[in-house]
Amino acid sequence: MSDPQPKSAPPRLYLDDLSVGQRFTSGSHQLDVSQVVAFARQFDPQPFHVDAVAARQTFFKELVASGWHTAAITMRLLVEGGFPIAGGLIGAGGEISWPRATKPDSLLHVESEIVELKTSRSDPNRGMATLRSETKNQLGQVLQVLTARLVVFRRPDNSD
Amino acid sequence: MSDPQPKSAPPRLYLDDLSVGQRFTSGSHQLDVSQVVAFARQFDPQPFHVDAVAARQTFFKELVASGWHTAAITMRLLVEGGFPIAGGLIGAGGEISWPRATKPDSLLHVESEIVELKTSRSDPNRGMATLRSETKNQLGQVLQVLTARLVVFRRPDNSD
Repeated sequence: MSDPQPKSAPPRLYLDDLSVGQRFTSGSHQLDVSQVVAFARQFDPQPFHVDAVAARQTFFKELVASGWHTAAITMRLLVEGGFPIAGGLIGAGGEISWPRATKPDSLLHVESEIVELKTSRSDPNRGMATLRSETKNQLGQVLQVLTARLVVFRRPDNSD
Repeated sequence: MSDPQPKSAPPRLYLDDLSVGQRFTSGSHQLDVSQVVAFARQFDPQPFHVDAVAARQTFFKELVASGWHTAAITMRLLVEGGFPIAGGLIGAGGEISWPRATKPDSLLHVESEIVELKTSRSDPNRGMATLRSETKNQLGQVLQVLTARLVVFRRPDNSD
C-alpha cells in the first residue's frame, strides 16, 4: 500500500490502533477572499460566493465561502495529518451540515473524534470508522460538522 | 435579491412553484485526468487522486476523482440550471454517499427530485426543500447520492 505522507510524518494508524472516543486535531488553513472567489467561480458561481457587492443583496448579506469549499479544505486538513490513517482517507459517505457561514478571513482547523468502529463482516482485514469532524474558525465557532464513514485497514502481518 | 443566471435562463422557482416528486435534470460536465489531479493536488492530495501509477497500489487500483470533486461538480451543475431556484442554492446540510468511484473520463450529469417541502415556522416567507440528487456518469451509473436541505423562498408579493 502506497503511503501518501512524507518520511517525517507521524506513523499512520490502522484499525488496530483506533478506539471510540479517540480525538485528533488538524493543522490550520488561512482562507482569504481570493481563494473563496476562485473556488466559487469554478464550482459554485453564485453572487454571495463570487461578488462582495452583489452579496449584500442576498440571504448572506456578505461574501461567504461555498460550503463545498469548506468541505474541500476540511478534507485537505484531514489528509495532511488531521486523521493520520494508513491506506489513506477513503470515504464511503456521511452527513454534512454548515451551522454557520464560512467568512473569507477564517483561519480554519478541524477537530475530529471517532464515534464508531466496525470490522467488516465480509473482510476481516478491513473495517469502517465513523469520524465526526468539526471545522472551526479562529473564534472556535463551528462552521461545518461532517460525520463521515471511512474505510480503515487492519495492520498487515508483515507491518510493524 | 440578485439573480445569478443570465437573461436567457429559465425563470427561477419559488417555494410556491415546488412540489414533492418534482424532478430536474442538469446539463453535463466532461471530467478528465487534468481536472481530477488539479482538484486533488489542492484539496485531497492522496496517491489514488493525484498519481495514476501510484494509484495502482492503492484500494482503488487506479486514478479516481476525490469524492469532494464529484460533490463540487454536482454543485456547479445544480447552480447552472440543475435546480433553478430563486435566491440561489443555499444548503443547510445533507447526506452524501459515493456508491462508486468517479473515473477521470466520466461525463457527469445530475438528476434530482424534491422529496420533502416544509414552510418555516418562524418565517412564513421561507421554507426548506429536501432535494435528492443522483450524480451519474455516461453509463447511467450512480456515483454520488446527495440528499440536501436547501433554503427556499416564497414568491414576493411584488414579483410576477
